[in-house]
Amino acid sequence: MRHALMTLLAALGFVTPGPINASNSETTAGGPVSYIVYPIGWVRRSDDKTFIEVDKRFLPALMGVDELKSIWVLYWFDRNDTPQKRSMLRVHPRGNPDNPLRGVFATRSPLRPNPIALSQVNVLSVRGSLIEIDGIDAFDDTPVLDIKP
Amino acid sequence: MRHALMTLLAALGFVTPGPINASNSETTAGGPVSYIVYPIGWVRRSDDKTFIEVDKRFLPALMGVDELKSIWVLYWFDRNDTPQKRSMLRVHPRGNPDNPLRGVFATRSPLRPNPIALSQVNVLSVRGSLIEIDGIDAFDDTPVLDIKP
Repeated sequence: MRHALMTLLAALGFVTPGPINASNSETTAGGPVSYIVYPIGWVRRSDDKTFIEVDKRFLPALMGVDELKSIWVLYWFDRNDTPQKRSMLRVHPRGNPDNPLRGVFATRSPLRPNPIALSQVNVLSVRGSLIEIDGIDAFDDTPVLDIKP
Repeated sequence: MRHALMTLLAALGFVTPGPINASNSETTAGGPVSYIVYPIGWVRRSDDKTFIEVDKRFLPALMGVDELKSIWVLYWFDRNDTPQKRSMLRVHPRGNPDNPLRGVFATRSPLRPNPIALSQVNVLSVRGSLIEIDGIDAFDDTPVLDIKP
């Protein structure tokens, strides 16, 4: 029954036909079919302040971030990192059924094959491993993957 | 000798002290310490045109991309996905020793802990699994991880 439902959903384009993983991914000229990323820091919320706490091993990589007015933050929608959520291909934007269906690549939905979030934020200060920012649409302790000017 | 050099480079903040991997990553409240990403498509260069070819399994996720003027493309610096290049924390921007050292998080260097690239590009057309774009600073066959409005 569940299999029939998933087959129907795949035929309608809502989900991928079967799980996506290394063993059934397409490959490019023999290259790897999946890659590993790891947190370089985490979003930390404290009272009305928001920080990115950088893993101390990466502290030297912050040199110069204090001179930037804004940064791009790439972070991981860790609450959506399940095979099922990562197989969703079409959504009603903002979860509102009144919004017409769209492909996830035309939305900012956290349901997407690689649940990477992207936000531009303002840098308020950098002290040690803590970057104070003006805010970010992320839960406390969200893993951060990258910071760019 | 190599070990002594790496120890010196780590002490100077050029590289991480030892490889970064799941077994020595910090963890957040018992959560995973690394995540898997996989290509959802590839950069394709043909004569003077540039495309993103989306893996056919993800075709339904493109619905609505044709209505977007520009998209953000997240892609993988696959030529820099080595433990050594991913341990670099400070670089001379654009590889020019005349540029003062900066932390990689204050640069767009392809040498970074998670070698994810980010570019905003203009959408020229969407035909089947091919998005024609106006250009991107990436080699042919570069793996694409995500597309966002």
